[in-house]
Amino acid sequence: MTVPRIGLTLGDPGGVGAEVVLKALASKGRLPEAEYVLFGDARLFGEEARALKLPADFSPWPGGGPARPGIFLRDVAAPAADRTRRRPDAANGETSFRFFEAAVTAARGGSLDAVVTGPVSKAAWELAGLTWRGHTEFLEGLYPGAIMSFWSPRLRVALLTHHLPLAEALGRVRREALLGFFRSLHRSLAGLEGGPGEILVPGLNPHAGEGGWLGREEETEIRPAVETARAEGIGISGPHPPDTVFRLALDRPGTMVAALYHDQGLIPFKLEGFETGVNATLGLPFVRTSPDHGTAFDIAGTGGADPRSMIEAVRLAARFSASAS
Amino acid sequence: MTVPRIGLTLGDPGGVGAEVVLKALASKGRLPEAEYVLFGDARLFGEEARALKLPADFSPWPGGGPARPGIFLRDVAAPAADRTRRRPDAANGETSFRFFEAAVTAARGGSLDAVVTGPVSKAAWELAGLTWRGHTEFLEGLYPGAIMSFWSPRLRVALLTHHLPLAEALGRVRREALLGFFRSLHRSLAGLEGGPGEILVPGLNPHAGEGGWLGREEETEIRPAVETARAEGIGISGPHPPDTVFRLALDRPGTMVAALYHDQGLIPFKLEGFETGVNATLGLPFVRTSPDHGTAFDIAGTGGADPRSMIEAVRLAARFSASAS
Repeated sequence: MTVPRIGLTLGDPGGVGAEVVLKALASKGRLPEAEYVLFGDARLFGEEARALKLPADFSPWPGGGPARPGIFLRDVAAPAADRTRRRPDAANGETSFRFFEAAVTAARGGSLDAVVTGPVSKAAWELAGLTWRGHTEFLEGLYPGAIMSFWSPRLRVALLTHHLPLAEALGRVRREALLGFFRSLHRSLAGLEGGPGEILVPGLNPHAGEGGWLGREEETEIRPAVETARAEGIGISGPHPPDTVFRLALDRPGTMVAALYHDQGLIPFKLEGFETGVNATLGLPFVRTSPDHGTAFDIAGTGGADPRSMIEAVRLAARFSASAS
Repeated sequence: MTVPRIGLTLGDPGGVGAEVVLKALASKGRLPEAEYVLFGDARLFGEEARALKLPADFSPWPGGGPARPGIFLRDVAAPAADRTRRRPDAANGETSFRFFEAAVTAARGGSLDAVVTGPVSKAAWELAGLTWRGHTEFLEGLYPGAIMSFWSPRLRVALLTHHLPLAEALGRVRREALLGFFRSLHRSLAGLEGGPGEILVPGLNPHAGEGGWLGREEETEIRPAVETARAEGIGISGPHPPDTVFRLALDRPGTMVAALYHDQGLIPFKLEGFETGVNATLGLPFVRTSPDHGTAFDIAGTGGADPRSMIEAVRLAARFSASAS
């Protein structure tokens, strides 16, 4: 039996990334067997492990070869000698990017099936002169069809657009863009355990435009795109009223809501999937997941970070890896 | 001790209105003592009561005078001899409007403290040549400062705008309109039991614009309006990230989220407040509530309608009446 090869990045050294990674790996029985590879600075992991009284005697990762169960370390030296904690810092921004870049490079080269990313600070990346807003934006540069999605035990949401002003996001709700999104989403989901499931498409306007009285995009853009996708054999329905489609999704396990703008998807997801939500980037040649929380600078170093979202991110990465292989 | 005087309208005769009103009134112990006045056709109420095996021997409402506990009927004859069920119908649209109009007239004249409206069909109103989209729009014509709000045991939401295309709703997020909305909302809430509570204002853009990177309305419109309102002594905060403000509201009982567009408020409300949600129109000289569901034509006449939302609507009307008197 082969096990998946899963990279885990430490994230921002000033945040809770190392803590939730180590706690997740120490949560016996909650993670599947895998070749786990930590991407981070050996000294930082060691310090964190001692503070948490958790093991940190990881063998160096040989890379390549057949996957073997265990926890390995791919040491990526942090440039800064001392660690600034609990606030955005240029050196930490640079460091967290290097951890991530090393893991992505390994995944692109075929040495990893999945990458689970610890939280980074967008502000720290900016201080370090990095132009990407986060992991997803970096991956979109490499894979323009990448899709930001969110998974909880009861709800799954994908976003047509994410970090855009709302007025600008409305302008992206166009027939061709929607059709490309639906196709890419269906293709990504079809490769995963459980098959693609049904894609539920909300309208853009109140009551999905109510036949044109409350907006036209449903009739001119959304419905034509849904109908074309359905004619191509994609399991898809809509436009549904935005304020009831998420309850519909809860009633139909395995469906995914294709949200048309950031908050249409994330307001309900964060209400429903709080604490166990996972962010997954779809449309890549490898799996990428991350916990649905940030660096939590305010509690970094206290030992109080909750690893549940990280555990779920690792479990989802393993499930996706298994179905992809 | 004085009791509140609460009118209940039957709603569309083809829907579940009479059923949920009668079931609510028969739910012993779940409703407070009040002078309940049914606005509807005596024959329709009688038919419905017989079908449900519930009492319908209501005394005619004398109107005026001191309030006395009990259930009374204000007979408003339905123009159509036969009742069309389970679909929008012009005669039923006209009839449901007459029930509502009679109750509003009584409330405006001081004979009622509150009106609880049974569900009407917008399509039926259109067939009847009525131009209002629903109860709230009619009341806004009389009281331009009226506010549509939604109440559940855990979450309260008010809407800056409601039945507008999203692109048009974005154009209403302007400093002066927001300030007027905050003032009117605070004034309405201040008159209710429990005081005004804190108003939580979401941003319009992802992450509340993130300092201008994801949109400017937070800095140019929303924050200035919030700050002016706060300087006037209104308990208010924001702009908060839209995808976390509802969880913040759940953590702070008694707060109200001032949503900037229909689905920003109703997507989370319908996820959280399902089955017990109540719609309340604020900013009127009387109380108006209604259950948060429609005519449910698909199950009308089956006896299967769930009265919980109507019961909550009546209870909220009674609470508001008590605090206003």
